[in-house]
Amino acid sequence: MTFGERLQAAFDSSGHLCVGIDPHASLLAEWGLPDSALGARDFGLAVVEAAQGRVGIVKPQVGFFERHGSAGIAALEDVLLACRAAGLLVIGDAKRGDIGSTMDGYAEAWLSPQSPLAVDSLTVSGYLGVGALESTAQLAVKNDRGVLVLSATSNPEAPALQGSRDSSGRTVAAAIVDEVRQWNRDGGPLGNCGVVIGATVDLASAGIDPGSLRGMPILAPGFGFQGTPLSAVRSVFGSAAEGVIMSVSRSVLAAGPQGIAAAIDQSIAEAREAYAA
Amino acid sequence: MTFGERLQAAFDSSGHLCVGIDPHASLLAEWGLPDSALGARDFGLAVVEAAQGRVGIVKPQVGFFERHGSAGIAALEDVLLACRAAGLLVIGDAKRGDIGSTMDGYAEAWLSPQSPLAVDSLTVSGYLGVGALESTAQLAVKNDRGVLVLSATSNPEAPALQGSRDSSGRTVAAAIVDEVRQWNRDGGPLGNCGVVIGATVDLASAGIDPGSLRGMPILAPGFGFQGTPLSAVRSVFGSAAEGVIMSVSRSVLAAGPQGIAAAIDQSIAEAREAYAA
Repeated sequence: MTFGERLQAAFDSSGHLCVGIDPHASLLAEWGLPDSALGARDFGLAVVEAAQGRVGIVKPQVGFFERHGSAGIAALEDVLLACRAAGLLVIGDAKRGDIGSTMDGYAEAWLSPQSPLAVDSLTVSGYLGVGALESTAQLAVKNDRGVLVLSATSNPEAPALQGSRDSSGRTVAAAIVDEVRQWNRDGGPLGNCGVVIGATVDLASAGIDPGSLRGMPILAPGFGFQGTPLSAVRSVFGSAAEGVIMSVSRSVLAAGPQGIAAAIDQSIAEAREAYAA
Repeated sequence: MTFGERLQAAFDSSGHLCVGIDPHASLLAEWGLPDSALGARDFGLAVVEAAQGRVGIVKPQVGFFERHGSAGIAALEDVLLACRAAGLLVIGDAKRGDIGSTMDGYAEAWLSPQSPLAVDSLTVSGYLGVGALESTAQLAVKNDRGVLVLSATSNPEAPALQGSRDSSGRTVAAAIVDEVRQWNRDGGPLGNCGVVIGATVDLASAGIDPGSLRGMPILAPGFGFQGTPLSAVRSVFGSAAEGVIMSVSRSVLAAGPQGIAAAIDQSIAEAREAYAA
């Protein structure tokens, strides 16, 4: 099965919610875990246990593992192993972006089945030109995996760059959507390649036509803790909401090891309601 | 000493050349090394040995280590240890870019003195808005380290994004230069924060005034193998050439374990000539 098909199956069976695996120092402290690679590993394994059987998708945030050096990356490998054993789709939130053979190196690390870091889909960053990521997208699709390219994000510093316009007047964010749509030409109903668009982004202000997103996986951080209620998915993404991966992290992780399962159940109910409406 | 001061000292004592540490699969094969984390480690240690006493700066390309998972990152940690023992300034070419606490995680991984991945300066990518990298720059400076922000690169896919214009008509590449210059306000004659600009970039086409780059470290890949002769540094960078880190990788690494020292010496001579002219 392609990544798009597996993602659609996860949506159908478990809804659109995705649980972040963010072993932030302050969360490790709240969970009574040491601020170390071992703490990050135990945190990740506990989140996987709470997520299993509840949601279909998890998203480890690579920066919180890399913070602990190679031991942290080894901890992430253990967490990824647990994700695969639990049958969870994994989005590696690494935001890698380079060119040529260096980018191929990152692609092989995250999107080759034999790699200990293999994930189902990888977030990538196109400052060097979205075209420089096409070979990564091709490798992903060849291996039945996907990529999610940063398009429009929620942080206040984003619009200056992402809203800049190319010679034809398109915003940078919209140009990326157009390019990624091309990569999906030969894909199924839900593509293997998608974009990252923050849940608090106003698509019109970002210069993005919601229709251009249809049939594309859209990773949307910014639900829950950062402020957009899950119920708003249709008002934010319109007809593209069917492809949205609703990512929640802090809002469920802050519930702690005892409360996380209930917090996930609560978010699942809200997400289902948003789509049933 | 600040990063800017250490970089200036390296320029004064050893010139502007920087040797890349790129354990590309094809180079590992040419060097008779296995395509594994151990091969990448041995390659890196051999390059450090050849660089020591010749140049002042090396630049490990992180993607070629990450390709081997956590074992590859552990290999990089060994190579970084050897760099420090050899007294080499290290530019970690990781092109990391995220926001908030995740970006802080990357900053702590690469720019904290106690981290096994600590480098003197880190390449970072500002797709999420260059302002989102300011806290990383602050952490770097606090720890007497630096950052190098991607501005204008040589690859053919780059100008579409990097040449897009903000509401005031500045290119994305030029807006980044302006922001980084602000970060250097309180620095010495050579700043701690700089930019990455490919040696084959035409500054005028990229919308960058060479004067705006003065006093800034400029990491310039694209010398040697990719086509710009080292002798062209003044014609490409004008009055900003004094801050240029001339990065060579393939052109010296392809000389193999027997030939690399002579290839580095040859490049050093060409670089010196370019600045003496």
